[in-house]
Amino acid sequence: VEVVLADGRVMNALSKLRKDNTGYDLKNLIIGSEGMLGVITAATLKMMPRPRLLETAFIAVPSPHAALALFNEASAAAGFALTTFELMSDLALQFSLRHGQNIRSPVNGIYPWYALIELSHGSESADGLLEQILETAIRHDLIADAVVAASEAQRLAFWRVREFMSEAQKFEGGSIKHDISVPVGAVARFLVEATAAAEELVPGARCAPFGHLGDGNIHFNVSQPERADREEFLGRWDEMNDVVHAIVLKLNGSISAEHGIGVLKRDVLPRVKDQASLAMMRAIKHAFDPRNIINPGKLI
Amino acid sequence: VEVVLADGRVMNALSKLRKDNTGYDLKNLIIGSEGMLGVITAATLKMMPRPRLLETAFIAVPSPHAALALFNEASAAAGFALTTFELMSDLALQFSLRHGQNIRSPVNGIYPWYALIELSHGSESADGLLEQILETAIRHDLIADAVVAASEAQRLAFWRVREFMSEAQKFEGGSIKHDISVPVGAVARFLVEATAAAEELVPGARCAPFGHLGDGNIHFNVSQPERADREEFLGRWDEMNDVVHAIVLKLNGSISAEHGIGVLKRDVLPRVKDQASLAMMRAIKHAFDPRNIINPGKLI
Repeated sequence: VEVVLADGRVMNALSKLRKDNTGYDLKNLIIGSEGMLGVITAATLKMMPRPRLLETAFIAVPSPHAALALFNEASAAAGFALTTFELMSDLALQFSLRHGQNIRSPVNGIYPWYALIELSHGSESADGLLEQILETAIRHDLIADAVVAASEAQRLAFWRVREFMSEAQKFEGGSIKHDISVPVGAVARFLVEATAAAEELVPGARCAPFGHLGDGNIHFNVSQPERADREEFLGRWDEMNDVVHAIVLKLNGSISAEHGIGVLKRDVLPRVKDQASLAMMRAIKHAFDPRNIINPGKLI
Repeated sequence: VEVVLADGRVMNALSKLRKDNTGYDLKNLIIGSEGMLGVITAATLKMMPRPRLLETAFIAVPSPHAALALFNEASAAAGFALTTFELMSDLALQFSLRHGQNIRSPVNGIYPWYALIELSHGSESADGLLEQILETAIRHDLIADAVVAASEAQRLAFWRVREFMSEAQKFEGGSIKHDISVPVGAVARFLVEATAAAEELVPGARCAPFGHLGDGNIHFNVSQPERADREEFLGRWDEMNDVVHAIVLKLNGSISAEHGIGVLKRDVLPRVKDQASLAMMRAIKHAFDPRNIINPGKLI
């Protein structure tokens, strides 16, 4: 990245290098700083070769624990070629089907959870690895049903189901959002515990989680009970956050996997981050921007 | 990582998460800081599944440019499964053969350059991808000769050739070292230009470079001319560094890819790093360690 600092100086960290050990890693410091240490004016991106072959499957799984076991199988067999492992609750799927145009369930029947998995190969010769993974998983009772995309059109149809999930929740009334991550091995436990806790806090609340299982990152979104008052439900936002975040922290997770802290979670941060880290962030902010003129009021 | 700071406080960044967007990235800041911002007392490591199949080849190539084209081919075909691409000059190989025990050249004949490449597969079904890559490369005239390891013993024998290169240079008199990186696409040009420049500076100097082509990281080591005076040659260390580093900088590279700055390259850093980056490193050091008690005198 290239960054304009608070005093107007320009810092050049526009490196194309894969290895560079000349001084502190300022690039990653800037990237995670939510615009508070300087203004990014240029960035270098790494291009990857376009995969020559994609294998994609939409899979019904009996439980989050089965999904996790399937992820471990697929990850061991495909390594870095496993480029997608999305986990979706049935309710998130139903919302997509109900409100989306041109969206149909890839599998026949209703199951509690689904996974969308994709392998990216640099060579056509790897064709068939996905079928092998699925056969092994069926022998281990990890899969209830599965469809492998037979065409690019079918592959895109699988993805439409997943990609419409976030928007579909708007049509179901108020939704309280959580963008959390936990260690990958703890995702199943998180989903079970957080669902129980949310339903206990607000009886009738409808948890519709989905997310990137391979990253341990779940969008744990809770829709209001049917026919409940939208504003009354959203009024319990902080309470619901507290209940869900408590489980995240118990599992050594993060309350913001992708979206950052900003203003919305600024006051929660001191409760979830250790004091020494917060003190160092404040000291770094002061070193970069002693007059606090860049994006003030955020994060810390 | 877990870090003890200069004032004795303990900072916890021992996260197992793949995604965490709660505040500045202190982990990477600490990792690249050469022990100057705190003392690391614990670290979390990610384990990878052991590959189920390795394919390894020792390949003679006519030039660094052909090696680069072979790397691009292999990278496009194998993606992340390409886990090794080592480039070695013939002189580095000859030093290994001359001084190593139980080390033999995997190929018949002498060629100007060699590559050691390895693919790591999570499944046995990927067997044969390496042969495909080599066949394509032969059709494109990128390869002079190649041997695929037929056993684990042969694979280890290939690696011994490469791994003894650094030690072998000790037996050839004084050696002036450079641990540099350039953008991957510039490696061939760097090797051609740096070799010419080193031989011009010290006639008879013997360049024996080898390194990680896939990372753009070359150990560009220059052995003294045969029968030259060792101390006199080593007395030209800084001069040789200047000549080689000038080419590195022209190609937007780094004068320290793996080894850091420490004391040895501290006085060179201000000439190769932009002033704003250096100022921010000093400000961060001051924020973490205002009394300058942790690893003083290094880097900046």
